[in-house]
Amino acid sequence: MDVLEYTPEPNDYAWTFGGVAPVRRVKPGTALRLWTEDAYCGTLRSTSDLASASLNMPYVNPQTGPFYVEGAEPGDTLVLHFVELTPARTWGVSTTIPYFGGLTSTDRTATLQDPLPERTWIYEVDTDKQTVGFQAQSSHLELALPLEPMLGTVGVAPAAGEARSALVPEMFGGNMDTPEMRAGATCYLKVNVEGALFSVGDGHYRQGEGESCGTAVEGAMNVVLVVELVKTPGPVWPRIENDEYLAVVGSGRPLEDAWRAGQVDMVRWLGELYGLDKLDAYQLLSQVSEVPLANVVDVNYSVVTKVPKRLLPQVEVYDGIHQQLRQLSLR
Amino acid sequence: MDVLEYTPEPNDYAWTFGGVAPVRRVKPGTALRLWTEDAYCGTLRSTSDLASASLNMPYVNPQTGPFYVEGAEPGDTLVLHFVELTPARTWGVSTTIPYFGGLTSTDRTATLQDPLPERTWIYEVDTDKQTVGFQAQSSHLELALPLEPMLGTVGVAPAAGEARSALVPEMFGGNMDTPEMRAGATCYLKVNVEGALFSVGDGHYRQGEGESCGTAVEGAMNVVLVVELVKTPGPVWPRIENDEYLAVVGSGRPLEDAWRAGQVDMVRWLGELYGLDKLDAYQLLSQVSEVPLANVVDVNYSVVTKVPKRLLPQVEVYDGIHQQLRQLSLR
Amino acid sequence: MDVLEYTPEPNDYAWTFGGVAPVRRVKPGTALRLWTEDAYCGTLRSTSDLASASLNMPYVNPQTGPFYVEGAEPGDTLVLHFVELTPARTWGVSTTIPYFGGLTSTDRTATLQDPLPERTWIYEVDTDKQTVGFQAQSSHLELALPLEPMLGTVGVAPAAGEARSALVPEMFGGNMDTPEMRAGATCYLKVNVEGALFSVGDGHYRQGEGESCGTAVEGAMNVVLVVELVKTPGPVWPRIENDEYLAVVGSGRPLEDAWRAGQVDMVRWLGELYGLDKLDAYQLLSQVSEVPLANVVDVNYSVVTKVPKRLLPQVEVYDGIHQQLRQLSLR
Amino acid sequence: MDVLEYTPEPNDYAWTFGGVAPVRRVKPGTALRLWTEDAYCGTLRSTSDLASASLNMPYVNPQTGPFYVEGAEPGDTLVLHFVELTPARTWGVSTTIPYFGGLTSTDRTATLQDPLPERTWIYEVDTDKQTVGFQAQSSHLELALPLEPMLGTVGVAPAAGEARSALVPEMFGGNMDTPEMRAGATCYLKVNVEGALFSVGDGHYRQGEGESCGTAVEGAMNVVLVVELVKTPGPVWPRIENDEYLAVVGSGRPLEDAWRAGQVDMVRWLGELYGLDKLDAYQLLSQVSEVPLANVVDVNYSVVTKVPKRLLPQVEVYDGIHQQLRQLSLR
Repeated sequence: MDVLEYTPEPNDYAWTFGGVAPVRRVKPGTALRLWTEDAYCGTLRSTSDLASASLNMPYVNPQTGPFYVEGAEPGDTLVLHFVELTPARTWGVSTTIPYFGGLTSTDRTATLQDPLPERTWIYEVDTDKQTVGFQAQSSHLELALPLEPMLGTVGVAPAAGEARSALVPEMFGGNMDTPEMRAGATCYLKVNVEGALFSVGDGHYRQGEGESCGTAVEGAMNVVLVVELVKTPGPVWPRIENDEYLAVVGSGRPLEDAWRAGQVDMVRWLGELYGLDKLDAYQLLSQVSEVPLANVVDVNYSVVTKVPKRLLPQVEVYDGIHQQLRQLSLR
Repeated sequence: MDVLEYTPEPNDYAWTFGGVAPVRRVKPGTALRLWTEDAYCGTLRSTSDLASASLNMPYVNPQTGPFYVEGAEPGDTLVLHFVELTPARTWGVSTTIPYFGGLTSTDRTATLQDPLPERTWIYEVDTDKQTVGFQAQSSHLELALPLEPMLGTVGVAPAAGEARSALVPEMFGGNMDTPEMRAGATCYLKVNVEGALFSVGDGHYRQGEGESCGTAVEGAMNVVLVVELVKTPGPVWPRIENDEYLAVVGSGRPLEDAWRAGQVDMVRWLGELYGLDKLDAYQLLSQVSEVPLANVVDVNYSVVTKVPKRLLPQVEVYDGIHQQLRQLSLR
Repeated sequence: MDVLEYTPEPNDYAWTFGGVAPVRRVKPGTALRLWTEDAYCGTLRSTSDLASASLNMPYVNPQTGPFYVEGAEPGDTLVLHFVELTPARTWGVSTTIPYFGGLTSTDRTATLQDPLPERTWIYEVDTDKQTVGFQAQSSHLELALPLEPMLGTVGVAPAAGEARSALVPEMFGGNMDTPEMRAGATCYLKVNVEGALFSVGDGHYRQGEGESCGTAVEGAMNVVLVVELVKTPGPVWPRIENDEYLAVVGSGRPLEDAWRAGQVDMVRWLGELYGLDKLDAYQLLSQVSEVPLANVVDVNYSVVTKVPKRLLPQVEVYDGIHQQLRQLSLR
Repeated sequence: MDVLEYTPEPNDYAWTFGGVAPVRRVKPGTALRLWTEDAYCGTLRSTSDLASASLNMPYVNPQTGPFYVEGAEPGDTLVLHFVELTPARTWGVSTTIPYFGGLTSTDRTATLQDPLPERTWIYEVDTDKQTVGFQAQSSHLELALPLEPMLGTVGVAPAAGEARSALVPEMFGGNMDTPEMRAGATCYLKVNVEGALFSVGDGHYRQGEGESCGTAVEGAMNVVLVVELVKTPGPVWPRIENDEYLAVVGSGRPLEDAWRAGQVDMVRWLGELYGLDKLDAYQLLSQVSEVPLANVVDVNYSVVTKVPKRLLPQVEVYDGIHQQLRQLSLR
């Protein structure tokens, strides 16, 4: 298997999905060893670094990429299998940002209230114990939380000539901020432009469902992924497969629209996989789906609709490519 | 421990939270053995029974109760610990209902489109295997899904003289439709009126998160619960504790408001339990919360915010009443 | 025409729609001369009276009524024609209330931010000039704004045994807070219980569309209205007719659902009046409707869908009862 | 005054705001005589032309432009004064489009229901009477509705390297679909990129507030506008001034967020114009604003917050440029 290593310089970051020239061309079947900067561009390094002084909004979520996938044509299915996600620093960081996050008014859910105060938390990574350390600032509480690395943003160039900020989750993927995007997961995205032009970034050392304050334990990440291409019609919304689940990530506002989008696509998917009409698929979904929130803080909100494989007959998804890649990466 | 057995006749059902005289008076510390009719009032018994012909909307979700809890005063915390939930019939049932459910327009999210077709599914209960059987009608797919009994509705009388349909989830509890309301769970509700006047109903033999089509595997239920009363201030939103989690159930529309409500209450709760100010509690929540949807189909939508106990220092919640009741019920 | 005069004592106020015994019985065709207290129960009388110290939430919007309309049966159309709305005091009052209003977080759209400061404004009524006086507190700006009296709440008892706070707008009417509810308007409401049990209150000396801060220029009101009953099926949502417009008031959350509800009902209404199928009525509505917001601050939000009579062929609505009552009241 | 005439060929249309090279450079103070194609690219010409067969979604709303305004720098205020909007064809057209519009489920508010049927309406323009003719297809109803030309889309290139479809309303303007964008109006937009890169399109011969079915009486338009530039900080959201009103157009989802955004910006604007602090401005807005919906059908919904000049002291807005341009254009 071909392996491409790539670590961007700050000038190499992409800030949008679409509208950016590719940094590399890759063939399907290639493994990529990538480095991604954290969402804050590495500018927050201590509890005295506050977001409003350090960040140059909206230039956050620097993307590693985009990569041009040879042979990828509009309508195809791009397959990204995540082999390894490993912290590239010994600390992660989270922060409140004025008028950003889920439990504050924002530029979109605008009110006349003052913003919440700013505060920055540094989480030390303990590689042996595989934990990150939470330290309260208003008390002595210290907690070792499990390290659970994931990528906030994985996306391709949008359709119809659009270019979207790396803060946006949409049909093209992007800033979905779901803990499901972890090592062992395979992500399926519909190709909108020649070469697909995918990029990744926004590593999280761990994140709660919903990403309440707007930021996870943000950290630079070493990413190993395999790129594949399937010439069958790509999904409307991003799909994720792992050993236990099939999942669809819907995004939108209000939050119920994000949910509806993912659910309708899962009804379609179950229908195709099991030969069910839409009413039977709707009924089955109603009794088996698990629905964790991803984010309620980004330009669109994201909701994951998951179906447990253990409850369903075994079936080949996208020609069984997840299992193939999984075995490959477990060698 | 006192035990009260109660099985309502059809004339005994309550259709609202509030506005109904109590059926029984109980002392804190009493165990109740109850029977609850299914959401459809038992009218759907075969796949040829369709909702629009059989139901007398909005007279669904018949409630067993209300019960007057002696000594309960406005502001107190009512504690309901669920010891056993056991199917009271050998079959459960689910159905599409015209203009009701999550993936259809409704009387609230109104459109000019025709309704989805009606269909009814019967799920046979296999007591040995502890499963319910899904049978597709558009294919030969049959699935044995785990029996996972829960209660859709648990609530007290609302504040301020309101009476609300048994279809409504709100601060007073009600039709939250969360799979977290299962045996082993303790539910905390703020008392709004003298005697609390709680009722339960809407048993589900299993339910996916979100209750997509609007109905779970609905079934009559035998319910064993213990009633307790704590004279500390009741929670703003319903709280649930089990051996693994602390949870808050927020309800509202749009769905993000249901989420915000539960999250803000969990920030408050974490702050009280661990001596954190709101920013530290917000940060901690952001990295540890699990947020499954409950329902996106009822008068208000409901979202559960859960915090795993394993990630947090051990602490007594409501004087440790959950542990006490749990040991009691495990004897 | 029979005339009934009624001024409630504080003990006579109703705080809910439904769940309250009638204060008077009236025959259709009766004129009522009523007095309504302001939303604050008259407790805010100077700029130093602040809401949080003076109000006993949620005991606001005291209702004059309910009135039992003889012969009114579930499904009928209750007709309330407003002949006169006249300020019953020489001043009105408005205020910010912590965590209440449109440009602040609330108990429903919950955030962790501090509330906005409280401030109270007194508006002197100038009867000669028919104005109310706005006085800024942060500058010397003083403005004489036109007196445009309206009623915030007009409603009947809800269906299905519910009782709802006087803060709620819904299918039964209630706290719609639309400037369309002024003298010269006829309101059509579906009867849900025997006697209809309607009440009115929450007088506004003027109000902007949306009622941004949550309160209008609130004031006690002298109300003259005529009660009629039409034995044709009542409307799903409250309808208002005046000399220039037909209107429907939809309520719900999110705001688009309030809009959708009123629009779908107007499609139905246009279809009935002009023999149009739903597509033609939808098209016509798309090109002629005027859609001012009513409130974006109450338990449900309210949106008005208006169709100008001048653009449409003349047609009898509810047997021409508005024109009849209008001529009556102009004598 | 310099006058630039420009009629694009089909190859000259822009389909996005941003990401497109300018078609012309103009100096501030220039008048432009433009022609804009209709939203359907002129493909719907009779009632038998249906949308799904004729349109190449999302290639609708072809833009005339973008124009590079000399001297325009990020942060400036672009001023576009509309002198004349005149139908460029003798007929306009409207249509239902599957899964598009306000009273249907859509790709965003997704349901499993079938789409509404497609239908196309042709509106003949009567230049003498200044009307457009509605013809029902399910009855003989024919109506002459006033011709009230407006532009659906007016926008500049977005910030932060984004490019957005011509279907999107946002901070940069775009597809706001408000009847306020008519002859006599002055639109203020914040410049995000050098040269501003504004474009216009999507002419409507008339439109109801909300654009219920998703399309107005769409028609090619002759547009005369004057371009000016003010070197003071541009507004957060698009502002419109005419002889009677100051207005802000907020866009977003859910609809209440579109409202909040425009309202908060109007509080800011009133504060600046009259030296009010935010509480006084909030209070004043609450009693004087008029709030018609613009669209509830586009990628973001749009709401207009208007303040009537007649209620407020006279004040110079943007150096009185609207009055200057108005006098100019009335000569």
